[in-house]
Amino acid sequence: MSEPMAAVDVIRAKRDGGVLSDAQVDWVVDAYTRGVVADEQMSALAMAILLNGMTRDEIARWTDAMIRTGSRLDFSSLSRPTVDKHSTGGVGDKITLPLAPLVAACGAAVPQLSGRGLGHTGGTLDKLESIPGWRAHLSTEQILGQLEDVGAVICAAGDDLAPADRKLYALRDVTGTVESIPLIASSIMSKKIAEGTSALVLDVKVGSGAFMKDVGSARDLARTMVDLGASAGVTTVAVLTDMTTPLGLTAGNALEVAESLDVLRGGGPPDVVELTVVLAREMLAAVGLTDVDPADRLADGSAMDAWRRMISAQGGDPDAPLPQARETDVVLAPSDGVVVQMEALAVGLAAWRLGAGRTRKEDPVSAGAGVVMHAKPGAAVRAGEPLLTLHADDPARFEVARAVLDSAVVIAPEGSRPTDTPLLIDRVASD
Amino acid sequence: MSEPMAAVDVIRAKRDGGVLSDAQVDWVVDAYTRGVVADEQMSALAMAILLNGMTRDEIARWTDAMIRTGSRLDFSSLSRPTVDKHSTGGVGDKITLPLAPLVAACGAAVPQLSGRGLGHTGGTLDKLESIPGWRAHLSTEQILGQLEDVGAVICAAGDDLAPADRKLYALRDVTGTVESIPLIASSIMSKKIAEGTSALVLDVKVGSGAFMKDVGSARDLARTMVDLGASAGVTTVAVLTDMTTPLGLTAGNALEVAESLDVLRGGGPPDVVELTVVLAREMLAAVGLTDVDPADRLADGSAMDAWRRMISAQGGDPDAPLPQARETDVVLAPSDGVVVQMEALAVGLAAWRLGAGRTRKEDPVSAGAGVVMHAKPGAAVRAGEPLLTLHADDPARFEVARAVLDSAVVIAPEGSRPTDTPLLIDRVASD
Repeated sequence: MSEPMAAVDVIRAKRDGGVLSDAQVDWVVDAYTRGVVADEQMSALAMAILLNGMTRDEIARWTDAMIRTGSRLDFSSLSRPTVDKHSTGGVGDKITLPLAPLVAACGAAVPQLSGRGLGHTGGTLDKLESIPGWRAHLSTEQILGQLEDVGAVICAAGDDLAPADRKLYALRDVTGTVESIPLIASSIMSKKIAEGTSALVLDVKVGSGAFMKDVGSARDLARTMVDLGASAGVTTVAVLTDMTTPLGLTAGNALEVAESLDVLRGGGPPDVVELTVVLAREMLAAVGLTDVDPADRLADGSAMDAWRRMISAQGGDPDAPLPQARETDVVLAPSDGVVVQMEALAVGLAAWRLGAGRTRKEDPVSAGAGVVMHAKPGAAVRAGEPLLTLHADDPARFEVARAVLDSAVVIAPEGSRPTDTPLLIDRVASD
Repeated sequence: MSEPMAAVDVIRAKRDGGVLSDAQVDWVVDAYTRGVVADEQMSALAMAILLNGMTRDEIARWTDAMIRTGSRLDFSSLSRPTVDKHSTGGVGDKITLPLAPLVAACGAAVPQLSGRGLGHTGGTLDKLESIPGWRAHLSTEQILGQLEDVGAVICAAGDDLAPADRKLYALRDVTGTVESIPLIASSIMSKKIAEGTSALVLDVKVGSGAFMKDVGSARDLARTMVDLGASAGVTTVAVLTDMTTPLGLTAGNALEVAESLDVLRGGGPPDVVELTVVLAREMLAAVGLTDVDPADRLADGSAMDAWRRMISAQGGDPDAPLPQARETDVVLAPSDGVVVQMEALAVGLAAWRLGAGRTRKEDPVSAGAGVVMHAKPGAAVRAGEPLLTLHADDPARFEVARAVLDSAVVIAPEGSRPTDTPLLIDRVASD
């Protein structure tokens, strides 16, 4: 009853193309979290923001207001510098799994507080939960202790980290208001700033398998987030990377853990290794650790040692066999030729439909389900050779997955070459 | 679970500037009424419609979909042709009160099914409820009988008349999505078409006291509604009328009834008489009754007879004294001169704050509260003469009303003249 303003006036201001005042932003974010601004009011405002945009200052204020609805972690007591990575979500993107222990092995501390995956890009926590015994939920004391001892934590973000964002994200998901750069940037950065990391490297995905379908909007998003980080005192760098083809040869939970272990053993698919090392170098540079080469730490086994300590510290058994799906189904190459396209979105959707991802927050995921790719773009194949292996607990899922993949893999006559898209597209740093 | 589509896809289509298919419109309107599409989804869609617009065909389909969520009345059994009037809401707009019996006295039947007023423009039902004994709620049989016998009914619209609109209007009111021509036009026309009238005259208000602040948007709204009526087989004509100054000399419930009685007695303020006669002529022409002059029916007392029968048929006592507010407060002219402005919005807000209107649906209204204007633009006044009389049951309300009115009345030096704005601005009919 003693609210200083009315939601409808804030909505109208943005609807009519205005710039929200600091007081309006602060109030509407806080009042929404308190339940005073109703869901139907916030969704109308979110749509007005999506269509009419926000200024840099508005986005910064909005981000800060979301942070202030919860508490912030403080890592200043650690002896190591903290640096985190965030990816905007891609198919087969298991990079966090080898990256966090690799950067820890190089001397930094990586506090990776994650959410759950929704839709066709899998969640990091779901992947790690395929390891027997591994726990996603840690107390703040456990996080601090593990960061000091091991140098890497991948765990569930607590409920008190930007609670406004948690509520708003769920609302945007059902109201068609996800695809807004101000709302995406403030959502990601509110959590990362509240998390307390002193530096941050952003992997902004571009292409059919990503949120951002074109380089221009990906660059806008990257620039917006880098600026938000800088104004909050977090050293922030973004790289734009290609997501037209899945990363690596697997999409799925245990399947991606297994592939990550290959990388930590010094092997693994070249694109996964390349992106892991590039991101590790950016993270180390952001905290001034430039005299160590992460490629060496992969080769000498110290990254694998850090992985084993990180998994064990959270109750996981690094030596336990990973779960496997009950059934497999092999998709054969229909003709001789060269693979010129393996569509990331389709592979992601297929893995999701096979049981690797969830539609609703409360859905379970299958640890073993997913897709293994036997040939990536550029590879020569012969008719009748295995092209993909589908893994699922329920064989009834294979039909839908095959339908989704139907036009995703393109084989061109021998001598053809796929369009040459580099993995690294651009880099955006503070001015 | 077996819904044919998802709300988020419909929202995205409109958000991205697309045209909704007939199937999308039909489903989303129906599913919203059933509660399958949530309030937060419909408000996001409403904001996208407000900002991205709708084609004529989309608006027509949306209107029809809203009608099909309820039932339609059928007046084909009546011996009189039916014709209704709708006003988009203005301050002091009591025209329905003398108009309905006047048109009945000329041989047509007027089925005026109304909603309640919200905000600064009073509701017709609230005005009539200041008459002792008068009832707003009638059965369909009572409506039909009264239309045949008396020729005019002003009553509450039943819950089954376009229920989608009822739900959507309440949502738009709190989500900043009222001011959209497609949504305003479909809201008004769905109720009027469902009401079953064979002809309709629209009074679209323009100016500070109205929804539409400029002639261009008022003309757009009028054209949209006229087209909707025509495509539903309802002969529809719109007039654009000025609403920068209140109509007549009163704003309030019983105060406006009393002024309407003056008109029915052959007197009353010239602007109220002019608009009543103009709208009566349009209504009669729309049903082919062109050989009768409504001005004669005001003069010969037959309109007053129809009023008395209309009020009596709904339990009201046409001879009972009207309620009066307990307290009055006279605002005096601060200087000699000529009134050059009497701002409609401010007078409407003052009447509302004095108790004549409601903020929430469930609020009661005061029958006697309101504003009486002693001078309209063009009138000469002397310092210390009464300019306005405020009526309220609670004298504590006078201070707020005076504050609202503070700059609303402008008195210029003697010899000045107000801007000459004609009452009738334009007329829009079917092509």
